Amino acid sequence: MNYLFNDFVVSGLNPSNLVETGEQMKLTISKNELNDAIQQVAKAVSARPAIPILGGIKFDVNHQFVTLTASDTDISIQSFISVEQGDKIIAQIDKPGSVVLPAKFFVEIVKKLPSDQVMIEVRSGFQTIIRSGSSEIQMVGLDPEEFPVLPSIEQNDILQIPGDLIKSMIRQTILAASTSEQTPILTGVLWNLHDSMLKFIATDRHRLASRTTKVDSELNFSNIVISAKTLNELSRLIPDQNTLVDVVVADNQVLFKVDNILFYTRILDGTYPDTSKIIPQVFETELVLDTKNVMDAIDRAYLMSREEKTNIVRLATLDDGTIEISSSSTELGRVTEQLEVKQLTGEPLRIAFNSKYMLDVLKVIDSEQLFIGFSGAMRPIIVKPMDHPYSMYVILPYRTTG
Amino acid sequence: MNYLFNDFVVSGLNPSNLVETGEQMKLTISKNELNDAIQQVAKAVSARPAIPILGGIKFDVNHQFVTLTASDTDISIQSFISVEQGDKIIAQIDKPGSVVLPAKFFVEIVKKLPSDQVMIEVRSGFQTIIRSGSSEIQMVGLDPEEFPVLPSIEQNDILQIPGDLIKSMIRQTILAASTSEQTPILTGVLWNLHDSMLKFIATDRHRLASRTTKVDSELNFSNIVISAKTLNELSRLIPDQNTLVDVVVADNQVLFKVDNILFYTRILDGTYPDTSKIIPQVFETELVLDTKNVMDAIDRAYLMSREEKTNIVRLATLDDGTIEISSSSTELGRVTEQLEVKQLTGEPLRIAFNSKYMLDVLKVIDSEQLFIGFSGAMRPIIVKPMDHPYSMYVILPYRTTG
Repeated sequence: MNYLFNDFVVSGLNPSNLVETGEQMKLTISKNELNDAIQQVAKAVSARPAIPILGGIKFDVNHQFVTLTASDTDISIQSFISVEQGDKIIAQIDKPGSVVLPAKFFVEIVKKLPSDQVMIEVRSGFQTIIRSGSSEIQMVGLDPEEFPVLPSIEQNDILQIPGDLIKSMIRQTILAASTSEQTPILTGVLWNLHDSMLKFIATDRHRLASRTTKVDSELNFSNIVISAKTLNELSRLIPDQNTLVDVVVADNQVLFKVDNILFYTRILDGTYPDTSKIIPQVFETELVLDTKNVMDAIDRAYLMSREEKTNIVRLATLDDGTIEISSSSTELGRVTEQLEVKQLTGEPLRIAFNSKYMLDVLKVIDSEQLFIGFSGAMRPIIVKPMDHPYSMYVILPYRTTG
Repeated sequence: MNYLFNDFVVSGLNPSNLVETGEQMKLTISKNELNDAIQQVAKAVSARPAIPILGGIKFDVNHQFVTLTASDTDISIQSFISVEQGDKIIAQIDKPGSVVLPAKFFVEIVKKLPSDQVMIEVRSGFQTIIRSGSSEIQMVGLDPEEFPVLPSIEQNDILQIPGDLIKSMIRQTILAASTSEQTPILTGVLWNLHDSMLKFIATDRHRLASRTTKVDSELNFSNIVISAKTLNELSRLIPDQNTLVDVVVADNQVLFKVDNILFYTRILDGTYPDTSKIIPQVFETELVLDTKNVMDAIDRAYLMSREEKTNIVRLATLDDGTIEISSSSTELGRVTEQLEVKQLTGEPLRIAFNSKYMLDVLKVIDSEQLFIGFSGAMRPIIVKPMDHPYSMYVILPYRTTG
């Protein structure tokens, strides 16, 4: 096993030391720190493990760190608890060692233990005793040697991105990723880095989201595609305060370091489609709208369109320079919204689109006003924030009659 | 239609007035008051209506009240909005009338309307126009004459109960009601009133909850059984502040008045079983415990017992005067909790019970210390709060080996 970051060292156990001594691992650790680390890695525990060991959390204990690891085959998460943090002793290590504990029960019981301190002792056959206050729990542990070995990632060039930036880039793109496993590559978000511009793209063929940012890096990469679901999990691990996230791209893996956490994810196989050609460059009709007003109006029209299971909402320019947003349901009736525009140039327009897709975009666009560009009723609709040029959305219209 | 409370008068429409005039009902009403009333009655709208009209909310508009009514066959809820509230004009009535509007879409759209005022206009054929700000909604309304007629309840003797008292009595008993429709009578809570003592009882044959209170009333009734689910809905309608709830028991209905709301529920058919004989009066072993400590200990044991799908937890008195609470799972291991007691008298004991049932009781018992009485390993367990004598719980033990 190679580990990327020198400050985290996990001592591999020598199996010959383990044979039938009474006590194979023993420590007393702060419940809160243990619980935090468990919550961090728990997302990587297989919900329906193919083999029992994948339903477990691995403990590696040495005199510097208590390391928790969980892994399904797609992602692996490691959380490192420093035994000493400043003046505070977080864990007292009586005997270094390793064990794998079944996660499902363990994750819940630790939260509810009565004392602030938790003693964990592993005996022969990985029989584990957990003591806290007047509670004693005996668990059947598993052999850590059977736990999957984490991918070996060489210490390569590291790309540093502020945590809040990577979180907003994820939030502003994953909405357009496909949820269908029929085209696995489209369930991911494409990452490209060229000339210090980092770009995320997601598309499910009906809509596309792209988000760019300038980064301070000499690195270049392309066709790095990471599961949108995984990015969502990563996002939850990044604290809201200012944190730097270290990113290392390897052959078939990407490794993220967030504070005391290592997050490994596999790169999706395949070549991401070229999406550059579907984006119109000139528009027949251009609108500038107040984001909140148009979001509220489409939301009301969506409620009616949802009853028809189509989500079809229509947008039409009116002669008085306003626009009308409408939807109808054969059984229920009709919603009609008249909307002031900040700016309207070009040709009159009638177009229909999936209101759910449009709402997904409007919710993440983070700009008081937005630009919508149309190239005719059958051509892709472009939505962009007015406040900054970093994100761009494409929604294909619906072919409807009338 | 007879209505109980003289302060609420719903004007029945004379159908002859309705024939093909242009405008059948018209009002402008405050969105917030309308929305509050919609939320209050929405719980009585059938989720899967047998006929479309049961999926609707009925509006009855006269110059004093805007009345909203919803009804599935079990419960009916009416909310009365006063047209004037003090100096405030809540609704401007242009034309009294009635209509039924399909609830599902209507409930959601009203919340999201852009203006504080909502205009509702009903035209011929119950075509309804709703306007708010720049939104216009057309809905296909239904004929109010097809809406179920609410039960006629004579102005009888009224039992008044403080809202917070009735809420806590409901909360402290519904946990023991059956969720199985096999014995419909046991899905209800039994209400008895004799000699100014109001008593609620619920049991699913495995456990029983009873709660009594002294009320200031000359009334007597027995075998009034009301669905636990319905009582739960009623409970949500009662505000937390001090409110008086008026209760009227009629032949096959109970009517509750809470502020501006009338809540009708049907009395469950059948005779509630006599539960008085299953409650032991003398105990072989008596325990007094700290409620929070025993709840936390059983909660941890429950987590392990849940993995076995049995929820079996064992309780045993120890020689040192403490008790041990434990559970085990063949695959996972064992939880053992040692617990100080406040008081322990009588015989040594080993007993097993459903920990989920015990936790349900401990969560609602509202007393710092509790009494548990045992009459042997196979006899019902009694749990009572130490702070007050008003509630009592029975849990049947499990027959286990060892």
